[in-house]
Amino acid sequence: MLIGIDIGGTNLRIGVVDGLQVIHERRMHADFSGLCAENAPDIAWQKIIQITSQYLLEVLAAYPQVSAIGIGFPGFIDPVTGKVKQSPNLPGLLDVDLAGDLSRAIGKPVIVENDALAAAYGEFRLSDKPTENMIYLGLGTGVGGGLIYHNQPFPGQHGFAMEVGHIIFEPNGRPCGCGNHGCMEQYASASGVVHSYHATTGLTLTTGEIALHANAGDEAAIAAFDLAGESLATVLAHILKVVDVGQTIIGGGLINAWPLMQSSFFHTLAQDLIPVLRDKVAVTISTTGDIAGIVGAALLAEQKS
Amino acid sequence: MLIGIDIGGTNLRIGVVDGLQVIHERRMHADFSGLCAENAPDIAWQKIIQITSQYLLEVLAAYPQVSAIGIGFPGFIDPVTGKVKQSPNLPGLLDVDLAGDLSRAIGKPVIVENDALAAAYGEFRLSDKPTENMIYLGLGTGVGGGLIYHNQPFPGQHGFAMEVGHIIFEPNGRPCGCGNHGCMEQYASASGVVHSYHATTGLTLTTGEIALHANAGDEAAIAAFDLAGESLATVLAHILKVVDVGQTIIGGGLINAWPLMQSSFFHTLAQDLIPVLRDKVAVTISTTGDIAGIVGAALLAEQKS
Repeated sequence: MLIGIDIGGTNLRIGVVDGLQVIHERRMHADFSGLCAENAPDIAWQKIIQITSQYLLEVLAAYPQVSAIGIGFPGFIDPVTGKVKQSPNLPGLLDVDLAGDLSRAIGKPVIVENDALAAAYGEFRLSDKPTENMIYLGLGTGVGGGLIYHNQPFPGQHGFAMEVGHIIFEPNGRPCGCGNHGCMEQYASASGVVHSYHATTGLTLTTGEIALHANAGDEAAIAAFDLAGESLATVLAHILKVVDVGQTIIGGGLINAWPLMQSSFFHTLAQDLIPVLRDKVAVTISTTGDIAGIVGAALLAEQKS
Repeated sequence: MLIGIDIGGTNLRIGVVDGLQVIHERRMHADFSGLCAENAPDIAWQKIIQITSQYLLEVLAAYPQVSAIGIGFPGFIDPVTGKVKQSPNLPGLLDVDLAGDLSRAIGKPVIVENDALAAAYGEFRLSDKPTENMIYLGLGTGVGGGLIYHNQPFPGQHGFAMEVGHIIFEPNGRPCGCGNHGCMEQYASASGVVHSYHATTGLTLTTGEIALHANAGDEAAIAAFDLAGESLATVLAHILKVVDVGQTIIGGGLINAWPLMQSSFFHTLAQDLIPVLRDKVAVTISTTGDIAGIVGAALLAEQKS
């Protein structure tokens, strides 16, 4: 029995994993991005560890037979030290020892992996159409990516592979938490859609509200999702010309609005792919109901322990 | 003893390889791009096979102990059939069986690999600073790329990995042989520099002539090389965000003009890389004197035979 944890910008999910099943799950609102924005980094970090370990101990009390704990975390994970080098969604936090600090707090070993790579591995293992090679793109607060190549996670030399949310879509475009401008995730993520709609209308709505507006014919809302689909496809075409993988799965909370993004997405993708590659690429939407990150983190913890 | 062959758009090189040394080499002008432009595809193909096999038989007569022959070929190589699916530099040729046709013509087994992947493998094996992971970018008639990951060539699922010359640098930009517009190789290759200079001045010069003009202060010539460096770095930043590899080697004929490209290249690369990655990336210029493609093709033939 394993535990998989998914730490997002605004929520925390803990799942007890048995085989490929999540047999128990807790989801809580935890505004880690807000904590980082409103506190000094060390205070924010203390609170993040405290919140996470408290929930984790509660789950462990009910499932003491858990043998490995894996966390999917948004940011750059050093593959040697396991430390979180930087997390664009958690501004101000640098070189924090998530696995070590949490392990000390709960008294059990913990491993940490980039959240999108954990989700990619989860989608890969949960897929009923097995393939050796797969790309996962997760549309959440930011946009993460993970690559599975020859059945194995591809972390890159420094653990920074598939940081594709930071591929520049618009030179000198919107500022990004990474320090650059125009990164794709500033357009294709949930916060990107909120930004796009606000830039045109002055209104700050949720993506769900913007989707309702789009379905009612609001042109600014339609354009916000069009831009999300276009920016995602532009970058996916770049990715496919680098790694040449036949299967891409798109997940994350924003896929609830996929019907509003898919037209510009597939139009742009068809236009940008090298013509000879156009029939070799399948793009599908995740059907795992958002458990891939938890299952993937747990299975990677098992592999590494 | 092995033979490595490098087939470019306008020249053919055959090398007899012993260990990591090229002990005999023949270079001949062979305008394969011109043959394709001026003849029907099947006629052009017959002539390419005839020219190549004739030179190859002459070399084999002198080195009958050769055990494996490898070709680096510009284009998309199907990893299952070994056929050349399409070659942007050899317009009109589709699904040609280079290895098979040449093998029949000379009576010895032949393998074919993408020319840039062969050069990447050659640079990797010839490097005196060993690394497990490396990117090679070759600036020739087009721009090819090859990735070595964990000591092995990374061909991608369909043999189309690192077709990075076709990553779109300028949406709706210059037309490319691949069928798209604005591909990086239309700006960063030798033909791209010629194009850039012609677009501003109306003059068609060689890259060597344009380099002389640039060194004499000709602003159009300086701008042509600046654009080459900028477009190459923009795409390299994309690549590094996908695969996260610490060492990049740039080769190909255009590196003779590298001093004219490097300023815009390094400026753009520093700007576009994710800040946390900036100290993790080394870019160097090939010092193998252009034998990497031949050595790499030969060593890959040995590996596969």
